[in-house]
Amino acid sequence: MLAKEVKEKLIKIVGLENVEDSPVERLVYSYDATPQFQALPDAVVSPRNTKEVAEIVKICNEYNIPIVPRGSGTNLCAGTCPTEGGIVLLFKHMNSILEIDEENLTVTVQPGVITLDMIRAVEEKGLFYPPDPSSLKISTMGGNINENSGGLRGLKYGVTGDYVLALEVVLANGEVIRTGGKLAKDVAGYDLTRLMVGSEGTLGIVTEATCKLIPKPESKQTMLALYQDIEAAAQTVSSIIANKVIPTTLEFLDQPTLKVVEAHAQIGLPTDVQAVLLIEQDGPSEVVKREMEKMHALCEQGQAISVQIAESEDEAEALRTARRSALSALARLKPTTILEDATVPRSEIANMVKVINEIAEKYELTICTFGHAGDGNLHPTCLTDIRNHEEIERVEKAFAEIFEKAIALGGTITGEHGVGVMKAPYLERKLGEAGMAAMKAIKEALDPNHIMNPGKVFAKDCRKRVVVSR
Amino acid sequence: MLAKEVKEKLIKIVGLENVEDSPVERLVYSYDATPQFQALPDAVVSPRNTKEVAEIVKICNEYNIPIVPRGSGTNLCAGTCPTEGGIVLLFKHMNSILEIDEENLTVTVQPGVITLDMIRAVEEKGLFYPPDPSSLKISTMGGNINENSGGLRGLKYGVTGDYVLALEVVLANGEVIRTGGKLAKDVAGYDLTRLMVGSEGTLGIVTEATCKLIPKPESKQTMLALYQDIEAAAQTVSSIIANKVIPTTLEFLDQPTLKVVEAHAQIGLPTDVQAVLLIEQDGPSEVVKREMEKMHALCEQGQAISVQIAESEDEAEALRTARRSALSALARLKPTTILEDATVPRSEIANMVKVINEIAEKYELTICTFGHAGDGNLHPTCLTDIRNHEEIERVEKAFAEIFEKAIALGGTITGEHGVGVMKAPYLERKLGEAGMAAMKAIKEALDPNHIMNPGKVFAKDCRKRVVVSR
Repeated sequence: MLAKEVKEKLIKIVGLENVEDSPVERLVYSYDATPQFQALPDAVVSPRNTKEVAEIVKICNEYNIPIVPRGSGTNLCAGTCPTEGGIVLLFKHMNSILEIDEENLTVTVQPGVITLDMIRAVEEKGLFYPPDPSSLKISTMGGNINENSGGLRGLKYGVTGDYVLALEVVLANGEVIRTGGKLAKDVAGYDLTRLMVGSEGTLGIVTEATCKLIPKPESKQTMLALYQDIEAAAQTVSSIIANKVIPTTLEFLDQPTLKVVEAHAQIGLPTDVQAVLLIEQDGPSEVVKREMEKMHALCEQGQAISVQIAESEDEAEALRTARRSALSALARLKPTTILEDATVPRSEIANMVKVINEIAEKYELTICTFGHAGDGNLHPTCLTDIRNHEEIERVEKAFAEIFEKAIALGGTITGEHGVGVMKAPYLERKLGEAGMAAMKAIKEALDPNHIMNPGKVFAKDCRKRVVVSR
Repeated sequence: MLAKEVKEKLIKIVGLENVEDSPVERLVYSYDATPQFQALPDAVVSPRNTKEVAEIVKICNEYNIPIVPRGSGTNLCAGTCPTEGGIVLLFKHMNSILEIDEENLTVTVQPGVITLDMIRAVEEKGLFYPPDPSSLKISTMGGNINENSGGLRGLKYGVTGDYVLALEVVLANGEVIRTGGKLAKDVAGYDLTRLMVGSEGTLGIVTEATCKLIPKPESKQTMLALYQDIEAAAQTVSSIIANKVIPTTLEFLDQPTLKVVEAHAQIGLPTDVQAVLLIEQDGPSEVVKREMEKMHALCEQGQAISVQIAESEDEAEALRTARRSALSALARLKPTTILEDATVPRSEIANMVKVINEIAEKYELTICTFGHAGDGNLHPTCLTDIRNHEEIERVEKAFAEIFEKAIALGGTITGEHGVGVMKAPYLERKLGEAGMAAMKAIKEALDPNHIMNPGKVFAKDCRKRVVVSR
């Protein structure tokens, strides 16, 4: 619990109604979308503007109180789990779209804006914000920025970080800085914008962001290719890229995922095939038509047993929604769903899918795989039960092997979910000792008292995935 | 001069022939493409591989010797001028294209590769590396990465940093780290790749880079629009973007620039108009055709007195080459050419051009303006004579006003040339005190002995643009 003195100071800043520390409130914010991580915060504080954030941070810096910034808590790396207690900083009041600038093609938002609300608002103006994490209906822009979220359109358009032009950030010392601008180019010093994006709230607190928009693509087509051979599907992914077609979306779902998604969504997905590719292209209609034909041919050459183009936008949207629901659908099957997002170079997708299946077999686990195959970003998802300690041991070993293999193939331990607490024990395998030391030096430089989302990104001694609540 | 002991150690690492400290050699590397900055290095050292770079850095860190990494020295911010002496680290031996990966659409290079050589090599494979700084015929990839170089195609495709996927970097402590990978997505810790890009060699030395490639656009068209009213030309730039057309290239040249470029290139550029826009679009031919027509109409609506599409690729290439030669052409007119690259939001281009002309008039200076108008990135260029102290005082004042105005319009002091020594005195105006402190903290964390290109990015007390050689 917060010291009485601290609580009073916080109330003075944000008002009594915005400092909550009842047992219920603390419990509600003791976890996020990541299974098996839970820890009680000391209080939940909801600032109304940047000035209040800066004042709160100054107090936390003075009293050494951890701050965990939180949007909707949809992240999958326990990035918003208050593992060291302290304050959960909630952005429920700072949730406005401040401006859509149609001359400069930018949108400026507060961190608490729901991603989909912003996407809809810019699309009404004929503009387009491509990053679309599967959680976009509930995730916030602040969360997307902190995690550098990806999404289904990442293959062609890139991820959140590729669209953030400018940030307002409260640093650990309570100073407010502004990085970048409504600028296509800016090399005035180090790229603090990109350093902050994806830093998971460990370097500063984002209080405003200006993002790049692009003209909305004129047209879009969606296609489903069915495979009886998983590796043939993965091979098609590599072959499309190598043939110099970059579709908007190139998603992979294996049979176990298909089955649960269909049971959940009931839109007539085929459940008798080993894998499907969900392929989309957008842009000028002539180009979309031509490239869809090219990909159609490549799928067939790659042993697809059937390739169908969605006949309407409703049908296409149903397919996308089904894909986005994969995790929720899988999560219903077993008490515990552990999902990873190891990422490999696109050319290694077929290898990676093969390795995941071999590892699942070796450790006798149910691992369903889906994900952004075109990005090399797969989400092998293990359906298990945390109470079965013996099985969990095997799950640990299996994922450690998956990470090893991803890194050996030139990949990384996380493509879009972030490190958080969950993947912190594995980060050094990707970065090496010197890389870790460089990142720690930056953390130390900007947050010497370790108040900014402590315990995230950098692992403690413990290598266990499951944190005991404090 | 280097201590005998240090020199011997360096010779042991790279061989006698790769440590040069004759007066001639030191003089040759005492300056770069930036006018009026000169300082003698103590030696010029040419490593042959990453291991040698790491060993050199360890020695420099031990003996507190500045290291200035240098490609071809084409930068325009005195970023490679050895203002504090020490070693110029030359990449003449590390100049190979290590790999073009057609499956993953990447190219891996050593820092000494000439940009155009790499562009040609990837284009032979049907691939495309968009960043094309005007110096691309002689600049190196290492230099482009250190400066986060832009170019004529930045409007549609972005700058160097948008294409760097992975780096090998030697840190100040001599440790070698690898950031990123051949990966579309990677959120394993802080984005050190983007932190290094554009850090001007002040945080580490890039020894290898993997860059993203895209499929080569099928077709391209080039158009020249002539204006008798400068602001009308600038207004057309904003109007094209606001109409949701994003051309590859949207360059602006005013009459004084046109005149000298034509005298230099002799390709029949109009010299009786106040300004021209050079517009290019690439992509699928149907789309290029349609968008060129749309832009043609927008130019005409915007009071262009003539709009002509280049009839052949030769004619188009002549126009591009002429634009690229603008700086060299201007540099022939007067003893001293001082060029800036203040950048503003695209919507402010017309305002900025107007302000530059007003300031030139106010201080009775010849300022020619050309640049990447579509990016909001202009290069006002003052033709002057460093020996005329009274005039140089006025030049100083004029550029200070230009920077102030750019920042007031939501812009920045440098869009693509970097801070270096030249713009260091102005950086705080863009970043504020807290922003400067954050950047300095990062510098201090990664280079505590200040051996990595010291004196760059962060200003000393002196606000003068012209450094006296030491």
